[in-house]
Amino acid sequence: MHISLDKTGKESLTVQIAQAVIERISSGMYEAGELLPSVRKLAKEIGVSVLTVIRAYKIVEEKGYAVTLHGKGTYVRRLEKAAPPAASHDYEWQESYYDYVGRSIFGQQTPRGSRLLFPFHSATLSKEEHLPLEALQKATALAARDPHTFAEYSSPLGDLPLREHLAHAFQQRGIRVTESELMVTTGCQQGIDLVARTFAGPGDIVMVESPTYPAALDAFRSRGATILPIPCDSSGIRIDLLTRMFDQRPPKLIYVIPTGQNPTGKIMSEQTRRSLLALAESFHCLIVEDDPWSELHYTATIPPSICSMDQNGHVIYLKGYSKVIAPGLRIGCLVARGSVFLRLANVKAIADLATPLFNQRSFYHLLQNVSDERYFESVRAKMKRKKERVDKLLRQHGGAALTWEAPQAGPNFWLQTSANTEALSLLAKPHGLSFLPGAACFTDLSGGGHIRIGFGSVPDDKLEEGIALLCRLIEKQGKELYEPDVLS
Amino acid sequence: MHISLDKTGKESLTVQIAQAVIERISSGMYEAGELLPSVRKLAKEIGVSVLTVIRAYKIVEEKGYAVTLHGKGTYVRRLEKAAPPAASHDYEWQESYYDYVGRSIFGQQTPRGSRLLFPFHSATLSKEEHLPLEALQKATALAARDPHTFAEYSSPLGDLPLREHLAHAFQQRGIRVTESELMVTTGCQQGIDLVARTFAGPGDIVMVESPTYPAALDAFRSRGATILPIPCDSSGIRIDLLTRMFDQRPPKLIYVIPTGQNPTGKIMSEQTRRSLLALAESFHCLIVEDDPWSELHYTATIPPSICSMDQNGHVIYLKGYSKVIAPGLRIGCLVARGSVFLRLANVKAIADLATPLFNQRSFYHLLQNVSDERYFESVRAKMKRKKERVDKLLRQHGGAALTWEAPQAGPNFWLQTSANTEALSLLAKPHGLSFLPGAACFTDLSGGGHIRIGFGSVPDDKLEEGIALLCRLIEKQGKELYEPDVLS
Repeated sequence: MHISLDKTGKESLTVQIAQAVIERISSGMYEAGELLPSVRKLAKEIGVSVLTVIRAYKIVEEKGYAVTLHGKGTYVRRLEKAAPPAASHDYEWQESYYDYVGRSIFGQQTPRGSRLLFPFHSATLSKEEHLPLEALQKATALAARDPHTFAEYSSPLGDLPLREHLAHAFQQRGIRVTESELMVTTGCQQGIDLVARTFAGPGDIVMVESPTYPAALDAFRSRGATILPIPCDSSGIRIDLLTRMFDQRPPKLIYVIPTGQNPTGKIMSEQTRRSLLALAESFHCLIVEDDPWSELHYTATIPPSICSMDQNGHVIYLKGYSKVIAPGLRIGCLVARGSVFLRLANVKAIADLATPLFNQRSFYHLLQNVSDERYFESVRAKMKRKKERVDKLLRQHGGAALTWEAPQAGPNFWLQTSANTEALSLLAKPHGLSFLPGAACFTDLSGGGHIRIGFGSVPDDKLEEGIALLCRLIEKQGKELYEPDVLS
Repeated sequence: MHISLDKTGKESLTVQIAQAVIERISSGMYEAGELLPSVRKLAKEIGVSVLTVIRAYKIVEEKGYAVTLHGKGTYVRRLEKAAPPAASHDYEWQESYYDYVGRSIFGQQTPRGSRLLFPFHSATLSKEEHLPLEALQKATALAARDPHTFAEYSSPLGDLPLREHLAHAFQQRGIRVTESELMVTTGCQQGIDLVARTFAGPGDIVMVESPTYPAALDAFRSRGATILPIPCDSSGIRIDLLTRMFDQRPPKLIYVIPTGQNPTGKIMSEQTRRSLLALAESFHCLIVEDDPWSELHYTATIPPSICSMDQNGHVIYLKGYSKVIAPGLRIGCLVARGSVFLRLANVKAIADLATPLFNQRSFYHLLQNVSDERYFESVRAKMKRKKERVDKLLRQHGGAALTWEAPQAGPNFWLQTSANTEALSLLAKPHGLSFLPGAACFTDLSGGGHIRIGFGSVPDDKLEEGIALLCRLIEKQGKELYEPDVLS
């Protein structure tokens, strides 16, 4: 019998041996009627005195697990059928069970399970006003016509027709990519997560725009990477600072959202994009270019994607193509080159074998109808009007306590306020109004009195009421700090 | 200017400084016409002699990036618009770019992209013969009626009605679980991967049945865990060995597939299940109970799941509920208790925010029709007949070189052969016949001349031809070892 004894442990050797023997009997290793090793043999095997084993066997006997027949040895007893375990649970042992989970902030900040009147926390578009619901219904019906789509797994990289379609669409936007450098992901978040788990680890430096998208912070945090926040100016991430930081601590990854930066809604200038790529090239690191919003720009044009400038495989491009079309299908896409792509493909297969085939086929059918420029132009026009309305409403209802710059792309306003955003969040809840507290967007959770409001998913006819309410609450919260009794 | 000089480097200080300055100019940190720091100032700042900086600036000038005006200083030159980069790519830098990817074996062993005549590699069921395609079409059509399902994200844990339905179904099978201890995953593989990335890390011991499911090995491998394979006997994983191993190196996780073990098709006895749980309890570790096949048993009954015996949160139960119903929707489910569940939920949100809502709603509608016992009884009966037929065909066509035990549950036969399975795989390919080489199921890739054949997805009318062909190829491969010229 192999027993590992802890000679410095709290328990005496006798008790340790007795427990080990009892465990073996309970687990069925020794069956009823079986002879246990002789005292002498066991003592020799585990290097203790004969007396210690005799004492241990005595405990085993006393607890009812064995019986000693003098001159014959110690036998395992037939155990009574154990009573059914009590209904009470004891999960306490789990507390000391080690895990590799990072702090996940984003999930905690997102309200769930309730139909909110003013869901400003959401960065999606209004279903009723913007999304091509009819085309989606047709697309899923088409996909459903071929029963194979329910019954087959997709290739880990994704379904070929969809990959070819996406590669072609990207080529038209200047991104040189073939279907063998492109994979379909289960939403854009999976793309971020695949990159994080493939390339970021403890001690690796990941640079991000500050503020940035909270769920990306979560993914890098969960890998134990060191996240360095880089401030931005009107052209985007500050290249001057970045250059100095690179000198001191070259990063493994730089994560940016060049168009419709989340949460600020800014667009990175072409010069900054080029400089960023040049830096990545000189220091041999990867840029993660997250692009959920490039269809939703409010400027006349947008600079080319960094990926389209990339010659030597320094850019991993993540397209949340589905965000402006079909959030519920969770289709995203990842572009990368060389062995970087192959390594990501490997991890994709481990993560979920493949993105559901039915969703890919549905999305493919959808793109046949709505991927053309006319569709995006119409969404863009509607969202631009909405953005201008929000800007106007904020000026109308927001006091001096509120400052902001209207977004250049995407569905978010980033507001600075003197209010305590945590308290504001609690205050807003009973009114059915939600937003993203800015703290989630900073690596140090400081927040500096910011909130992010997504205006895309609040219906037009609720917008004025919602913004007015929000401004009233901000004002109220500001006052409460000084005159808690006045308003209640 | 911050320049980190490598004083032990291959490059001279002069060249290093020149390169650093050129990088800053190319990246846009210094703009055309801007004055570079004075020679004296820079020399002092970075701790080198004035002469070194003068030489460095000279290089910068020679390369065309700056111009020195005597008595005034060195100015950045307006750079010519860079020529468009050449079409050739240089991905070589990526080779030294470190990653955290484990060897992924399963993906490599799975043929893709071709419609095979005899797809014995697949462990899924035949679409045409077994899957409820009509019910699936109806279910997706129902889900599509509510356009919200395209336009909304699900909660990270999954859509509430589906979770309630699954929790209720599990309760009826003796698993005490509420909807708050159950999450929907994007296929069962995601469940395995979530557990691996949450709880397994470098140095942690993960024990598995040997042989086991290759994609699970991939998930644990990708985490850098130490995987210990435990042999099985007719009752399942060998508790006697496990008990000894626990003494020496207590594991963090034990991964088992008690019903329809993959690849062997065995069923673990109730006694072994109980003993395994008792061991996990005494050593405070987690059992990962993977259950893709419990509906497909060929014995009269099957023992209760380990999860149903678990009182204190030692079991994480993974149900590939969709495997026998709708592989293309990729719906799986995970049950766990206490903080173990909460930690997994955290990681699920990081992995993909949520499983697509449309798939969950479709699956929910599907379960209203086909989750009853009658559906599974009919699939079970069909698959049992098929299994018996395969067994008969193997006896008919397989020579002495082939031994096997028919599966007790699931869609796989695990065959032992004296053939070289790698060579056999190549031999089979041109015939449109595929199987899983057994090596993928062992931690050391030894394989010992095994192959796994899934009979579920080969249509009834192809079965005889397929098995006869396989047996012929095995015989041929066996002969080839000795008489390579006889057959060609």
